[in-house]
Amino acid sequence: MPAAEKVSIRKLGILAGGGLLPIQLAQECQQQGIEVFIIGFEGQTSPELKKTYLHLWTGLGAAGSIFKALREHGIKDVVLAGSIRRPWLSELRPDMKGMEILTRIGLGTLGDDGLLTLLKKEFEKEGFTIHGVHDFAQNLLVKEGVLTRLKPSDADWKTITKGLEVSQKLGELDIGQSVIVQEGRILGVEAAEGTDRLIARCAELQKRGKGAILVKTCKPQQDRSLDLPTIGPETAKKAGEAGFSGIVIQAGAALILDPQTVAEIADKYNMFVLGTSLETSKQQN
Amino acid sequence: MPAAEKVSIRKLGILAGGGLLPIQLAQECQQQGIEVFIIGFEGQTSPELKKTYLHLWTGLGAAGSIFKALREHGIKDVVLAGSIRRPWLSELRPDMKGMEILTRIGLGTLGDDGLLTLLKKEFEKEGFTIHGVHDFAQNLLVKEGVLTRLKPSDADWKTITKGLEVSQKLGELDIGQSVIVQEGRILGVEAAEGTDRLIARCAELQKRGKGAILVKTCKPQQDRSLDLPTIGPETAKKAGEAGFSGIVIQAGAALILDPQTVAEIADKYNMFVLGTSLETSKQQN
Repeated sequence: MPAAEKVSIRKLGILAGGGLLPIQLAQECQQQGIEVFIIGFEGQTSPELKKTYLHLWTGLGAAGSIFKALREHGIKDVVLAGSIRRPWLSELRPDMKGMEILTRIGLGTLGDDGLLTLLKKEFEKEGFTIHGVHDFAQNLLVKEGVLTRLKPSDADWKTITKGLEVSQKLGELDIGQSVIVQEGRILGVEAAEGTDRLIARCAELQKRGKGAILVKTCKPQQDRSLDLPTIGPETAKKAGEAGFSGIVIQAGAALILDPQTVAEIADKYNMFVLGTSLETSKQQN
Repeated sequence: MPAAEKVSIRKLGILAGGGLLPIQLAQECQQQGIEVFIIGFEGQTSPELKKTYLHLWTGLGAAGSIFKALREHGIKDVVLAGSIRRPWLSELRPDMKGMEILTRIGLGTLGDDGLLTLLKKEFEKEGFTIHGVHDFAQNLLVKEGVLTRLKPSDADWKTITKGLEVSQKLGELDIGQSVIVQEGRILGVEAAEGTDRLIARCAELQKRGKGAILVKTCKPQQDRSLDLPTIGPETAKKAGEAGFSGIVIQAGAALILDPQTVAEIADKYNMFVLGTSLETSKQQN
């Protein structure tokens, strides 16, 4: 989005999923003088946000109430921030508008990616504009390069390239974004369990030798104004405790929360944290 | 393998991996009057086999000793049975011959599939013939059809087809064979952790509604004389305890240990067990 266009946004709706991202985004917006309205979801969004910001707490299916609340607050621009777990019927709590959308689209065979794309379309149909998190928090976007004291070795680069390839193929299938590789061997692949649990189980699957590497990339077909892959201090801590040797995230297509703390934690565990594009990785081998 | 050829085999070497399969295969061979020699691996092969059969217990890297022992017992025909976990350097215990093979091939970037293909080639280079388990135990090969009282519904067939597709794509990447799907959503994907652990973690990831389905297929590029996907009573028990609604295995390209017990356990948990080809599944949708 051009800076000029962004400057004109004075009010932003944040559809807030889980994790720290919505909190950091809201803080960034506040610093930029943008007024924030939070749409939060029971069991997903951090209740912290209720304390500081105007908000509506509801179910993902309450489309009518969400649109109404945003309009009442004069909001035209919306960001989806944080992982929005795929809802199950029991959690949806649809209102009339929600029912209309649900019966129109169905939910059965959609992947996570398809679901977010649909969400975006429904908002656009109602006249809202969906922006990317990085339009308001450029500093969270992963940059090319090593954040840590430790740098990947030539052998690491082989493992990293394999991880990037597999991660991209899993992304194509809309299964998940993360892969854990040790010495060229795929220890685990993320689906519904999320990155933290993936790390925990792969900790045990490692064999002696150099620790595994977590590789996280953006699905190739992913609309980048939606759910970008994200790591933060918690990811670094879990990977460090698991004895991993590094974390790799896709430069320009992933978010890193609180990069300085991530680097400090990684240094403590003697781990590298690398931002790389798919092209850079190919050149390394 | 033509039956006439098989009849002439009087002695068979079984490279025995983990699980029940090598035991059931050895029993089958005995009933057919075939003398069996077991090559077992510490920490992988059931020590049960030591009691009943001639054997050599060693490391996967002890290629020289293995070839020598087989020759001394007049064995020319060999079957790989049971999952042979990918060895790590510390477990290999290579002898001279093993070192020669290892330095020639390297182990770094091979998937499980590539590793078994290499094993086969090394045996063939030494004059041995590698057969498939199903050449000696035809009755273990999965047949087309439902084994249980419960049959998959039309909605189940949609989920099954999705599972088969994803499982085949993961196979192409040489990541794993099994996928767990609930109402069209991929809950988990198997890599290094094995099917039992996959089931255990997906049990928790299920949401209310119809239980998940375990789908297990043979990698499309898999040499079928090597490691076929296998389920048995333990798989059925774990899936039943997890509250799954069914198990699907690929007809003609997977093994089922003790099908009657598998069906009894599945019936108890009100689960279906289905053998299907990829083609049959497509016709159902």
